[in-house]
Amino acid sequence: MGEFELIGRYFAAAPCAGHGGEVALGIGDDCALLAPAAGEQLAVSTDTLVSGVHFPERADPFLLGQRSLAVAASDLAAMGARPLGFTLALTLPAFSADWLERYAAGLSRMAERCALRLIGGDTTRGPLSLTLTVFGSVPARQALVRSGARAGELFCVGGPLGDAAGALPLVLGQLQAPAELAEPLLARYWSPEPQLALGQALRGHASAALDISDGLLADAGHIAQASGVAIRIERSRVPVSDALRAVHGEAAALQAALAGGDDYILAFSLPGEALAPLQAAGWPILAIGQVLAGQGVQLIDDAGQDITPAVRGYQHFRETP
Amino acid sequence: MGEFELIGRYFAAAPCAGHGGEVALGIGDDCALLAPAAGEQLAVSTDTLVSGVHFPERADPFLLGQRSLAVAASDLAAMGARPLGFTLALTLPAFSADWLERYAAGLSRMAERCALRLIGGDTTRGPLSLTLTVFGSVPARQALVRSGARAGELFCVGGPLGDAAGALPLVLGQLQAPAELAEPLLARYWSPEPQLALGQALRGHASAALDISDGLLADAGHIAQASGVAIRIERSRVPVSDALRAVHGEAAALQAALAGGDDYILAFSLPGEALAPLQAAGWPILAIGQVLAGQGVQLIDDAGQDITPAVRGYQHFRETP
Repeated sequence: MGEFELIGRYFAAAPCAGHGGEVALGIGDDCALLAPAAGEQLAVSTDTLVSGVHFPERADPFLLGQRSLAVAASDLAAMGARPLGFTLALTLPAFSADWLERYAAGLSRMAERCALRLIGGDTTRGPLSLTLTVFGSVPARQALVRSGARAGELFCVGGPLGDAAGALPLVLGQLQAPAELAEPLLARYWSPEPQLALGQALRGHASAALDISDGLLADAGHIAQASGVAIRIERSRVPVSDALRAVHGEAAALQAALAGGDDYILAFSLPGEALAPLQAAGWPILAIGQVLAGQGVQLIDDAGQDITPAVRGYQHFRETP
Repeated sequence: MGEFELIGRYFAAAPCAGHGGEVALGIGDDCALLAPAAGEQLAVSTDTLVSGVHFPERADPFLLGQRSLAVAASDLAAMGARPLGFTLALTLPAFSADWLERYAAGLSRMAERCALRLIGGDTTRGPLSLTLTVFGSVPARQALVRSGARAGELFCVGGPLGDAAGALPLVLGQLQAPAELAEPLLARYWSPEPQLALGQALRGHASAALDISDGLLADAGHIAQASGVAIRIERSRVPVSDALRAVHGEAAALQAALAGGDDYILAFSLPGEALAPLQAAGWPILAIGQVLAGQGVQLIDDAGQDITPAVRGYQHFRETP
């Protein structure tokens, strides 16, 4: 069976495939066609997951389908974009109807949750990897970029951190935990919830945003660097789930929250006066620090002492007087 | 060196990276932002090239850079879209500054020729493969889709066919040929010219179009099927280059032209009255057959006899009376 037919059978007919509205043309021609509404810009992001690098080689294809799309969709959330569609470039070592069906089912489940439609792609033979490119719509000049944070603002996150990193030893079979503790962590790893609604709600409020994929400290560093500011985070405010604490203990849980990626929770800067109205509207926003003049990222304890650990990928803190 | 820095160093600084105009935001944030002009739709296509499957494992990275983008850009040509930008998802087994520099140089060369800017992507560790997603702009309802061919029209191509297929044994070192014959074939393989200008010129004239990637007969079959028509091709009109004929002989050259992909020449249907004005304007259009009522694809000789070979992927010809 040729590659062309492969795509045709499993993906053009998948529940997540489709067109209509802003997807003017879907799978089956040389290109898909997107028709953004007047005044809207198109947000675009590409993510690759490689077998044995980004997920275990024998990963369940349904879970992989969910996770591969969630990881990509999270970048739309980070821009405040409304989801439109995605393309899937799937490289498979061999044709497997079972694998494809289960992968497509997981993908479709996440696509439905994210309101994303599969609009095109490519299927090739080779070592297993997945490249998803997602598309969203955002009003011109309202996208949440990384470079807008200003000294005096709050630094916030959209939920508890570290669960996905804490799940990794469970995923790899290196650690056992009671089901009631393991389940919530594994769910965050295999089925992260891209914070798409939160991202859109933050438009016009947050001055800078991203989704945490490299870890809190490293990603706070990305906002600090892009915005030309410093960010100070208070250890006691870093949100950690009960399950993570129970499985790994307090210290390792905090380490996972600070340095673990893969949670795909939003981190953003917010003028102080915007916090209470957003929280009152029900958004799960936690202020965990401040934006300051200077550069780099600092972690402080309750006494205000600098306890910043060495973490790959973030710039050392330096506050300007 | 982390993946993040990898991208940063070699691609954000590459000549093909950039923003401005319809690329509102380029590399460096969670998403790129495209701002199509009012009334324009966005054409999107994704192509993956896998080492050892789509190109030799030790392929020259400069040539691969050129080819990987040309293959993807050709889908924009096939839709009549004006090129805007592309994302690159690059999976590499190991960090190699030399490989990256040369790949980026080839990519940039082709990006300049195609007026495409690198707007984002992902770099990951794993078996060598490349997924490029290209973006173009096309006025609403003017894209060249596959489904518009009508009985009574001409079936046309944009240039000689089979050169890239004829180059493959040279690429693989299975065949030697004098440089003056080998060069033009190798150029068509490693540096195909996406017919972007021709595609845009065909808007408002061609009723259906695609770029030939599976071979003339198979791709004619795709138009026939999508449009619900039959296509009859005259063998004597199928254009074959002198170099291809000289290297492979008449019969093998024709076979390469009929069944070989990888030329990325446009094939399209055209009302008869549109042909002469387009040719007079200098477009390299060759009418090689007719669109008929019915289904499937037929190849005929000078006497009108059916000489259709068995080719994977095309539907058998059946003309309706």
